Amino acid sequence: MAQLLIKNIHMTDGRRKDILIEEGIFSEIEDPGTIRIETDRVIDGREHIAMPGLCNTHNHAAMTLLRGIGDDLDLKRWLKERIWPLEARMKMEHIKAGMELACLEMIRSGTTLFNDMYFMESDCVPFVDRMGIRAVLGEGFIDAYDEHLEKEKRAETEKAINACNSCSSGRVRPAVAPHSVYTVSEEGLRWCRDTADRYGCPIHVHLSETEKEVKDCIREHGSTPVRYLERTGLLGPDVIGAHCVHLTDRDISIMKRCGVKISHNPMSNMKLSVGGAFPMKSLMEKGVTVTLGTDGAASNNSLDMFQTMKISALISKQRYGVTSIGAKSVLEMATRTGYLSLGSDGGKIEVGRLADLILLDRNHHSLVPGNDHISDIVYSCSGSAVRYSIIGGEIVMDNGMVHREDDIIEDARKMASDLLSGDRRSQ
Amino acid sequence: MAQLLIKNIHMTDGRRKDILIEEGIFSEIEDPGTIRIETDRVIDGREHIAMPGLCNTHNHAAMTLLRGIGDDLDLKRWLKERIWPLEARMKMEHIKAGMELACLEMIRSGTTLFNDMYFMESDCVPFVDRMGIRAVLGEGFIDAYDEHLEKEKRAETEKAINACNSCSSGRVRPAVAPHSVYTVSEEGLRWCRDTADRYGCPIHVHLSETEKEVKDCIREHGSTPVRYLERTGLLGPDVIGAHCVHLTDRDISIMKRCGVKISHNPMSNMKLSVGGAFPMKSLMEKGVTVTLGTDGAASNNSLDMFQTMKISALISKQRYGVTSIGAKSVLEMATRTGYLSLGSDGGKIEVGRLADLILLDRNHHSLVPGNDHISDIVYSCSGSAVRYSIIGGEIVMDNGMVHREDDIIEDARKMASDLLSGDRRSQ
Repeated sequence: MAQLLIKNIHMTDGRRKDILIEEGIFSEIEDPGTIRIETDRVIDGREHIAMPGLCNTHNHAAMTLLRGIGDDLDLKRWLKERIWPLEARMKMEHIKAGMELACLEMIRSGTTLFNDMYFMESDCVPFVDRMGIRAVLGEGFIDAYDEHLEKEKRAETEKAINACNSCSSGRVRPAVAPHSVYTVSEEGLRWCRDTADRYGCPIHVHLSETEKEVKDCIREHGSTPVRYLERTGLLGPDVIGAHCVHLTDRDISIMKRCGVKISHNPMSNMKLSVGGAFPMKSLMEKGVTVTLGTDGAASNNSLDMFQTMKISALISKQRYGVTSIGAKSVLEMATRTGYLSLGSDGGKIEVGRLADLILLDRNHHSLVPGNDHISDIVYSCSGSAVRYSIIGGEIVMDNGMVHREDDIIEDARKMASDLLSGDRRSQ
Repeated sequence: MAQLLIKNIHMTDGRRKDILIEEGIFSEIEDPGTIRIETDRVIDGREHIAMPGLCNTHNHAAMTLLRGIGDDLDLKRWLKERIWPLEARMKMEHIKAGMELACLEMIRSGTTLFNDMYFMESDCVPFVDRMGIRAVLGEGFIDAYDEHLEKEKRAETEKAINACNSCSSGRVRPAVAPHSVYTVSEEGLRWCRDTADRYGCPIHVHLSETEKEVKDCIREHGSTPVRYLERTGLLGPDVIGAHCVHLTDRDISIMKRCGVKISHNPMSNMKLSVGGAFPMKSLMEKGVTVTLGTDGAASNNSLDMFQTMKISALISKQRYGVTSIGAKSVLEMATRTGYLSLGSDGGKIEVGRLADLILLDRNHHSLVPGNDHISDIVYSCSGSAVRYSIIGGEIVMDNGMVHREDDIIEDARKMASDLLSGDRRSQ
């Protein structure tokens, strides 16, 4: 869609505006009635509130297919007895079904850009692109210290990068995604850095998620995961570290110095009981960039970023006091900061930026009476208030309707049942 | 409605059933096609999942009108500068608007019974009753150690009890609601106990919410709030204590011995940074009854009990480990245990029980693929998946429609604006 005009929309600061989008970019934002232009499509904004689209910086999207499986088992049994056997049997049709369901869920709940790490990402590019959502896809790189496997993963990573770079809409872009310090060899990590430099794409890595990860790393490499990754040369301003719960002060200084971005995943951290406490205060004081992520649906179990915003704020308030963080900072983390950390100039409704925005139903009970829109967005609202999702100027959710929704739901149910029936057969 | 048949509904255990409701009670629950009866209304359950209605055991419902005001201020400034001045100016039309908005929000998000403590409750009875939701209303009893005020509050409490007892539908019932140990005199507390006994209604009280409350109580009365309330004779199996975060082992033993029920309010505890940590593990081990509540919208800011279920589980997992609590226990707390703690025989879809149930859209993305309905309900879903709310056999939300919704939304906005413009005038 070349031109789109949103008229008379409520902005989060309480003002009303007309917003003109041209060629995927915000081209004019003016007082109501000022923009006089005939456009292909006009949205009446009188009953909606506009906000930037949300950026989910850590996901394993296709895991929606495994949602609700073995939730209350301890981590070891959950992975060994339920998740890994199922993942080992996943074929492309399962990944596709899970990925499409995840995209549907993210679109419905206001996410316009997500950062993914999983398997068969190269094959996912056309499905993700068809959904209209913006994505950074990284093929999960796990070599398990095995030379043969490392070679295989190198090829798969490059294949995924090329697939993303061939996406003609430009919405799907690549990342290099070394899984973690405990699943990737030092050689593998160095190759990941070189590859990221070669292709100019970000690096997505799990980092200091559990105490065990930190202890094991100190035992094996003589330093914390952050220090170890710095030594291997992996760290840099293009790195998104997911979780980053167990950090020393020195780790935090290193991350600041290297410009590493953090994806904070409060729901998953709580649910998987990773221990410790995310050091929000120190990170904010030191000026380390914090963005927000949901983690995969198998460990959250929702991809709703509104929930993640609220709990990020509440966890911080619980630990450091009511005034330690405000709704505005959290909203910034989930929008502009997320976008910038993935090298994307969106996350803000401003002339010249990517036209990724969502429109909330201002008559949704959670946004009423509407004393403070930003507070309502962070503390009261959920993704269900989203009525329009507009990504690069394309209307991806149109007054509550997402293209192909029924087929996606049916396919997800069919593929999950297929996967689980294989699980039962093998038991 | 005398008779209602729900056909072919998905139950949370994966089975399919026909459910017949007669005179507000579940009268038959049978395999599909077994119940052959002509009823006034049939609901096709093929695309829905049935679960018991949720019970919110701690609310200040009318505070929805104050949602989002001064959220990120510290507690003292929030109360003194924003909330109290506004509350002092609240008239019946504000309370009505807030109460109706709260009822709408609760109905939409699956709550079928709530326990309330606020002002002007006697006047609220007809509005709440008209909404069709079940409620226990307690006039907030604060005497501030003032004899004159105590007399006034006695009269208001009895007025509210009589108003509730006159509610012809039987859905609205009374409670006695001494606010807390720090706002009610010993004499006031004794009167509350006598009055609860005299009218046979439950007692709703804030209890050990903050460390300050506990410390002050020890200084003034020589014991913790729980021990102090036991001494005054207030405690008993008809008491719902809200929050109960700062408890000693002895407090827990006393609560167990007296049969006191707890309303756990995790969202509000985090947001208001009450400190400490809710002792879920000890309470469960000792067998103290734990139910769930949202607290008022000014301190949560959502009345969605699905969110409260999820965070109750996640907080427990974070603190005590993944296996410390399961989705099934949390769901039980939010349904059957809540109902029983308020003396109501609902919260379970079983022949002979109150027909309070909700139907979820099984095609809502958060319930797909549907590997485990109970897990999806607790960890993935939000109130937005609710399509039908049936309370005492009456359809209160009908395929997503709630009666008078537009008027309630408009009135809430108008009354909040009226209240806040008074606030601005007086500043």
